[in-house]
Amino acid sequence: MEFGYSDKILRVNLSNDKISVEHPEEKFYRKYIGGEGFVAYYLLKELKPNIDPLGPENKLVFATGPITGVSIAGAGRNSVGAKSPLTNGFGEAEVGGYWGPELKRAGFDAIIIEGKAKSPIFIWIKNENVEIRDASLIWGKTTGEAQQIIKNELDDKLVHISQIGPGGEHLVRYACVINDLRSAAGRTGMGAVMGSKNLKAVVVRGNKRPKVANKEKLRELRDSFSNNYLKNYKEYYSYGTGGGVMEMFATIGNLPTRNFKAGGTNRAKTLDPKINKEEINLKMETCFACPIKCKKVVQIKEPWVVDPIYGGPEYETLAAFGSNCGIYDLKAVCKANELCNKYSIDTISTGMNISFAMECFENNILNESDTGGIVLKFGNSQAMIQMIEKIAKREGLGDILAEGVKRAAEKIQNGAQEFAIHVKGQELPMHEPRFKQGLGLGYTISPTGAEHMHNLHDTAIASEGSIANFKTLGILTPLQLDDLSAKKVRALIYQMNWCALVNALVMCYFVPWNPFELTEVVRAVTGWNTSTFELMKVGERIMNMTRIFNLREGFTSDDDRLPDRFFQPHTSGALAETSIDLEKFSEAKNIYYEMMGWDKNGVPSKIKLDELDISWANSF
Amino acid sequence: MEFGYSDKILRVNLSNDKISVEHPEEKFYRKYIGGEGFVAYYLLKELKPNIDPLGPENKLVFATGPITGVSIAGAGRNSVGAKSPLTNGFGEAEVGGYWGPELKRAGFDAIIIEGKAKSPIFIWIKNENVEIRDASLIWGKTTGEAQQIIKNELDDKLVHISQIGPGGEHLVRYACVINDLRSAAGRTGMGAVMGSKNLKAVVVRGNKRPKVANKEKLRELRDSFSNNYLKNYKEYYSYGTGGGVMEMFATIGNLPTRNFKAGGTNRAKTLDPKINKEEINLKMETCFACPIKCKKVVQIKEPWVVDPIYGGPEYETLAAFGSNCGIYDLKAVCKANELCNKYSIDTISTGMNISFAMECFENNILNESDTGGIVLKFGNSQAMIQMIEKIAKREGLGDILAEGVKRAAEKIQNGAQEFAIHVKGQELPMHEPRFKQGLGLGYTISPTGAEHMHNLHDTAIASEGSIANFKTLGILTPLQLDDLSAKKVRALIYQMNWCALVNALVMCYFVPWNPFELTEVVRAVTGWNTSTFELMKVGERIMNMTRIFNLREGFTSDDDRLPDRFFQPHTSGALAETSIDLEKFSEAKNIYYEMMGWDKNGVPSKIKLDELDISWANSF
Repeated sequence: MEFGYSDKILRVNLSNDKISVEHPEEKFYRKYIGGEGFVAYYLLKELKPNIDPLGPENKLVFATGPITGVSIAGAGRNSVGAKSPLTNGFGEAEVGGYWGPELKRAGFDAIIIEGKAKSPIFIWIKNENVEIRDASLIWGKTTGEAQQIIKNELDDKLVHISQIGPGGEHLVRYACVINDLRSAAGRTGMGAVMGSKNLKAVVVRGNKRPKVANKEKLRELRDSFSNNYLKNYKEYYSYGTGGGVMEMFATIGNLPTRNFKAGGTNRAKTLDPKINKEEINLKMETCFACPIKCKKVVQIKEPWVVDPIYGGPEYETLAAFGSNCGIYDLKAVCKANELCNKYSIDTISTGMNISFAMECFENNILNESDTGGIVLKFGNSQAMIQMIEKIAKREGLGDILAEGVKRAAEKIQNGAQEFAIHVKGQELPMHEPRFKQGLGLGYTISPTGAEHMHNLHDTAIASEGSIANFKTLGILTPLQLDDLSAKKVRALIYQMNWCALVNALVMCYFVPWNPFELTEVVRAVTGWNTSTFELMKVGERIMNMTRIFNLREGFTSDDDRLPDRFFQPHTSGALAETSIDLEKFSEAKNIYYEMMGWDKNGVPSKIKLDELDISWANSF
Repeated sequence: MEFGYSDKILRVNLSNDKISVEHPEEKFYRKYIGGEGFVAYYLLKELKPNIDPLGPENKLVFATGPITGVSIAGAGRNSVGAKSPLTNGFGEAEVGGYWGPELKRAGFDAIIIEGKAKSPIFIWIKNENVEIRDASLIWGKTTGEAQQIIKNELDDKLVHISQIGPGGEHLVRYACVINDLRSAAGRTGMGAVMGSKNLKAVVVRGNKRPKVANKEKLRELRDSFSNNYLKNYKEYYSYGTGGGVMEMFATIGNLPTRNFKAGGTNRAKTLDPKINKEEINLKMETCFACPIKCKKVVQIKEPWVVDPIYGGPEYETLAAFGSNCGIYDLKAVCKANELCNKYSIDTISTGMNISFAMECFENNILNESDTGGIVLKFGNSQAMIQMIEKIAKREGLGDILAEGVKRAAEKIQNGAQEFAIHVKGQELPMHEPRFKQGLGLGYTISPTGAEHMHNLHDTAIASEGSIANFKTLGILTPLQLDDLSAKKVRALIYQMNWCALVNALVMCYFVPWNPFELTEVVRAVTGWNTSTFELMKVGERIMNMTRIFNLREGFTSDDDRLPDRFFQPHTSGALAETSIDLEKFSEAKNIYYEMMGWDKNGVPSKIKLDELDISWANSF
């Protein structure tokens, strides 16, 4: 191929230090695109069923897409995938920054890491030169310390580093992978997989420019983006995610509060990064080539020192450590975010594990002897910060919580399971399924358990004004937030397939390209004569491959379900009388299966796989 | 809506002379697009099941699409639909020329004609003025005579006329509708439906310019068409369809010969309009706004006089009256074409009815007492021409053949059914299903019986060079002509859905827009933020609505089958050892159903209809 890709996949086996390069044919690239598509392909093709996700048989895939590294908004991301130690199923997360583009500049579309190193190492890729280097002296260091040591050792300040901190090393099941200290491939525990392989970091530096088929068209699209979109999003993105919306979210019932039990709070304003920007010295930075600049950087001197090198909290983090833990102290949330990035643990799952423990504590299922004297009540900022340290280092109760709420509840018992808010073992992100009921169904079906990166945000189709992009796919009329009819399921399916495609392109969701425009971007970059139809089929293909991966690991239709909590209303606030109707929800799940061409047990039909040109996946 | 449509549907009830205008909402236009989409919508919504297609309860729909009348290649067509008197199922055909654009210029997107006039009439539409006028004096006239009389009566030479000749008046079940004497909405007997309503013609004149959303983009697409495509097609289209290919078709076994029984012939060259252009005084004309100029005009002085006002024979006609009747006399074929256009009968079905009768005659199932003394043998040009007259006027054996081969064989008996080459009552067009086996399956599933306007021409994906446009939909590898695997079925389904969309846009197939480009055309004309994904769903929607229409009329999965002949090889030539494997073919049909989301009996599932946003169609 001439455009969009490097045509090289790097394979590194850490058990025997074998380094090799593969050159897939063009059809492979076109069918699986990149990112989550590559991850789905390699995991389904190459992993044996039922392996230990933290054993040497697991494989860790870093993948870019055709657009990664091309000079256009949203092209700064990469994907990290492996069998998840959190869900024991398909694991994958995306991350922004500069690392993905740098890998592409080094000449690789993806890296597959196999086996397990005998002792801590890092991988150093400088263009075609790939080295496995000793990391014994870096092991145990925080991400910030490790970055400094690696840059010094390589004598290169411009390298980009994707790494783990102590959380990954200690195999926290929701450890994340951190790019350049402040961008996280947060979900599904990919950092634990790195840790299990004794892999501290993958460091890259390259100087190849990605080749674009139609530069003029790409320039035109870039201009159109600046002229049509940027101005509308500027105010919003000046304060990053969560800026200016926290109070509104609380009012409508969509701000998870006290482990998803309580409803609205009148204190949400205190968590808003727009309103409190001076308190946290808010500055904005960006990812590769992106004019949106939505990445927060915060700096705080007291009562905690928060180092700006670790960025600042996204909306998910603000809610997970804020309202979700009953905490309305923005500085404490910023400190929590800094610690998570230092230790490489997922802010969402960490916040949810702490809120789980808080609810256990308040219900006398845990007490001070369990917590080592910490009064682990909702609202206790200091306790929250202490618990983050304990989780990352697997100390005391932290060792149990490092397993994730599902396993922790099984260990704690005494009714703790009621408070374990997860799907397939992954803790819920900060979107309320009683409020966005289509998203609630999406949580149950997403290949990685509860998450918001393959999902429908029902608000996006709830009004005539917000539905514009969906019309590009033929969803022509607004749909109620609590609609769970076939119409809503259709929108959810289209959206989940679309998201899987975006995850394969590893394009940022905050770039508001509609499906036609993104198709134009892919055409301009790759030179392929493709269409939104073909690209949507790529998404559908990925949703089927990941489904089959999970079925192979033993998941059944019974695992596609929400915690009981969501079938009861909030204790207060806007959703005090609103919950999900279990019967409608179950029916919607059946509709989802059938609309996807899956049987009553959620198994893709042979013919559906044939239609998606992945007959090979039939033989699982 | 501002662009692409007139926002007006004209409804004329001939039983009570009521004329009304409807203004559907934008969603209607976007979901059903036009052409075949409108026909499918109105027939399914408004016709009672099991009505007599030749009774007043049938409705006749003339429909344009958003592109009709816009100044771009291929935009000169319109669709005509009704319940078919030939198949008793869904009936629809498209036709080129100038009439469709003129209807749009008059300010109407479509006309729905209901009831039955007490005596012959024609409809005269001049912009918003709609009149029902007496046609008693025109009834019985050939199309050429009628055109002259109407133009004189209206004192307007620039009107465009869609009409029937005596074939339609005599309710020949495969009578067609003729635009301006030389373009035919050929298949499924729409001319008989006109005749049954005492409707001789629909005459239009308008002066409104269709509104285009993005004129600059449309100009760019037009230029791109001229620069990229026109030059490649010029030689081919200089001689129209069939030009320069007849011998090659015979050699490979794809030129239907002697009622689809025999194989190649070494005489096909004599039927080639390119090789014999001087013999027939070949000239080329065009449809509205089209630079391709593929419409033949022929003029012959002896042994028959062929009037150039009736145009000239397309490939289908050359083969149907030529090799298919064992006739290698191009002048005779041109005369046959002229007669069919004069009388308004479909050249394909007429040729096939005559070849059916010839095979019966040669097998002593018919004899000279049946034919009125005509020696109805293969190769007898004079006999063929005599039979056309008899069919159009329903004289003698012609009265039986005017019913179509299915009914004729039932009447003739004595084994005649073996020679009745049809699917669902409609005679096969001139594409050999033993050669193109995917198309063979398409014949069985097409909503209008055997036809080539919702079908896959397997040659289009049989080599790397020919597959380019299919790649736009994700069909990335060539597929053998005789492949009937799931891969082929997938290509067939995508193509049939795509064709249904093109029939809804009423865009010409000879304009080689790929799916992405055609999407760009639709976007430029309508201003909709649509995509190939949404548009392909329109095609799929139509394939499901038409399926339901046929199921409602009593068709079952058993009707989705080819005549026995195709499971045996040709008597000679390239396919002397090739036939269709019945078992593979049946299996492919089952794959088709399942891939479409239809049950084992070919019935669309409730959920599939929900997914296509046509839940209303569930209640049939």
